[in-house]
Amino acid sequence: MAESVKAFGWAARDPSGVLSPFDFSRRPTTDRDVQFKVLYCGICHSDLHGIKNEWGFTKYPIVPGHEIVGVVTEVGSKVQKFRVGDKVGVGCLVNSCRKCDQCANNLENYCPQPIFTYNTVLPDGTTTYGGYSDIMVVDEDFAIRWPENFPLDKGAPLLCAGITTYSPLRYYGLDKPGLHIGVVGLGGLGHVAVKFSKAFGTKVTVISTSVGKKKEALEHLGADVFLVSREQKEMEAAAGTLDGIINTVSAQHPIEPLLRLLKPHGKMIMVGAPEKPLELPAFSIIMSRKTVAGSMIGGMKETQEMIDFAAKHNILPDVEMISMDHVNTAMERLAKADVKYRFVIDIGQTLKKAG
Amino acid sequence: MAESVKAFGWAARDPSGVLSPFDFSRRPTTDRDVQFKVLYCGICHSDLHGIKNEWGFTKYPIVPGHEIVGVVTEVGSKVQKFRVGDKVGVGCLVNSCRKCDQCANNLENYCPQPIFTYNTVLPDGTTTYGGYSDIMVVDEDFAIRWPENFPLDKGAPLLCAGITTYSPLRYYGLDKPGLHIGVVGLGGLGHVAVKFSKAFGTKVTVISTSVGKKKEALEHLGADVFLVSREQKEMEAAAGTLDGIINTVSAQHPIEPLLRLLKPHGKMIMVGAPEKPLELPAFSIIMSRKTVAGSMIGGMKETQEMIDFAAKHNILPDVEMISMDHVNTAMERLAKADVKYRFVIDIGQTLKKAG
Repeated sequence: MAESVKAFGWAARDPSGVLSPFDFSRRPTTDRDVQFKVLYCGICHSDLHGIKNEWGFTKYPIVPGHEIVGVVTEVGSKVQKFRVGDKVGVGCLVNSCRKCDQCANNLENYCPQPIFTYNTVLPDGTTTYGGYSDIMVVDEDFAIRWPENFPLDKGAPLLCAGITTYSPLRYYGLDKPGLHIGVVGLGGLGHVAVKFSKAFGTKVTVISTSVGKKKEALEHLGADVFLVSREQKEMEAAAGTLDGIINTVSAQHPIEPLLRLLKPHGKMIMVGAPEKPLELPAFSIIMSRKTVAGSMIGGMKETQEMIDFAAKHNILPDVEMISMDHVNTAMERLAKADVKYRFVIDIGQTLKKAG
Repeated sequence: MAESVKAFGWAARDPSGVLSPFDFSRRPTTDRDVQFKVLYCGICHSDLHGIKNEWGFTKYPIVPGHEIVGVVTEVGSKVQKFRVGDKVGVGCLVNSCRKCDQCANNLENYCPQPIFTYNTVLPDGTTTYGGYSDIMVVDEDFAIRWPENFPLDKGAPLLCAGITTYSPLRYYGLDKPGLHIGVVGLGGLGHVAVKFSKAFGTKVTVISTSVGKKKEALEHLGADVFLVSREQKEMEAAAGTLDGIINTVSAQHPIEPLLRLLKPHGKMIMVGAPEKPLELPAFSIIMSRKTVAGSMIGGMKETQEMIDFAAKHNILPDVEMISMDHVNTAMERLAKADVKYRFVIDIGQTLKKAG
């Protein structure tokens, strides 16, 4: 049997969350595996939760990163989708049970036994490590073919932020031209939700706590309306105008004023997860048959469809490129939402072992 | 112009909620109106809320009753659906704006300007009075044709309890044979939800706080499974088994354990409205793409469809027939949920003016 492959990345070792260089190994490239050199990796807010163990299930050392793009360096003998030199992407999942109803329906993201790209303990006792590292090895079924001429650097965050917003817009029928969609929160997820919604031909209202984002939302991102959630009069005037809402906010916030923005039969989809339970007045959903629902990333087939759609419509996140040794500062800024709108680490050119 | 018609019923005059005889008038039968003699009227839990002003918008005197059946006594010159002698039903609505999108789509129940059967103030300053009375006058568009050979007495509660549960089962796609539906709460709404769900060909699990209802749920109502919501082990063993839930409970209760019963992509529909906000953990709907939604009665077209379906499948509520002068005692028992499962007042034979 082939030997493990040496790998190198940055890991957090304890709940301080400080990342530092880390030597480890990847499995050898087996029949259906693709090995690739990581070029770029986006920084998702859940990376921050993970390194600080804020969700309580972090296994240290943790190598985060699940918005990973690169170039194939080796393929297993039975690999069909990829050749050496192909561009490739990996998102939040690297495997699933392959046996359940969810897997059978291309919904690996809802498989009860998912293998996440990092921090999942495998049957052999090892833990998955993410994309803040030089190489990845992944089953080809969980690798995304990267479209020709589609930028790897800016495109990387689509593998989590993109599919997280694309999937609910599709599944809940909020992708029909002429609909009016609200996007709550204008961060990594929100700004991509605006771009997909516009590409679907819907009218878009951004709802934010910060009036400072108004100009950029309207002029740069192409939103049609901007509402400041704390301005009661503005919110009341917009009551009953939205067909659907993508709510990306993970800080505690009242949802009843947002539900009031929906038309009868409107739907609010939560993709951000505040820690404490949402307060949902039953009357606010009963009176006009409204829906509050959730959504979590997407299956592999839909993730491929999303990337192909993004490439066709030239949908790219707005990113701030950083070097690997800037990552701890970036995490501090991310905790303060001080980024427009996603950090991407230039792994290919800046991840270097100390001399 | 024709004169008003003398009418007689029972009304509450203050938040004590005590009902007593009440003289009032109905409008004359205009071109599109149907006048009918009330024979039976169901007692809905919202009648109880209304007479005690528990929702804060009661206008006294209040004549409750919105599960009303009777026989047509007069029709306007332009009435097309009814003749004198026809059986007729009226539910929660007697009119709507007729101009909005909801009305145009046969969803008068979601019209922003509904005219409810009782306690709605009309433009002329008068208030609508409900079915605890001898006669009703209603626009024919808001009157239901009663199916031949379908019992009026037992059938009356379908006009609210029936449509309240039938409509969400249909709208949210929970009416497909082979699905597994949960019904939370086994009262007026819940027991009808079980009957409709069985008629749709679904497997039915009843979830109740009271183990005392188990035998009846399984043996009499035809449910397939019975879960006691306080029995953690029972609930955990049933996790992930339900496609949908109709939640009829209006008392405060935790919804997270109920959401755990749903399969991925499952839906819980609230038709009962607890006073305080529901506590909804965002993770519990995000992880498996679950839905919490609401529903309120149904439009006129669907109410007719529901009654015709009930008649075809012989779906009748289980009722306890009472005389008019027993109504205050019935209200006290209803407050304690001491009824299987719906009181119906025999208006035709027991509503009499004092000598």
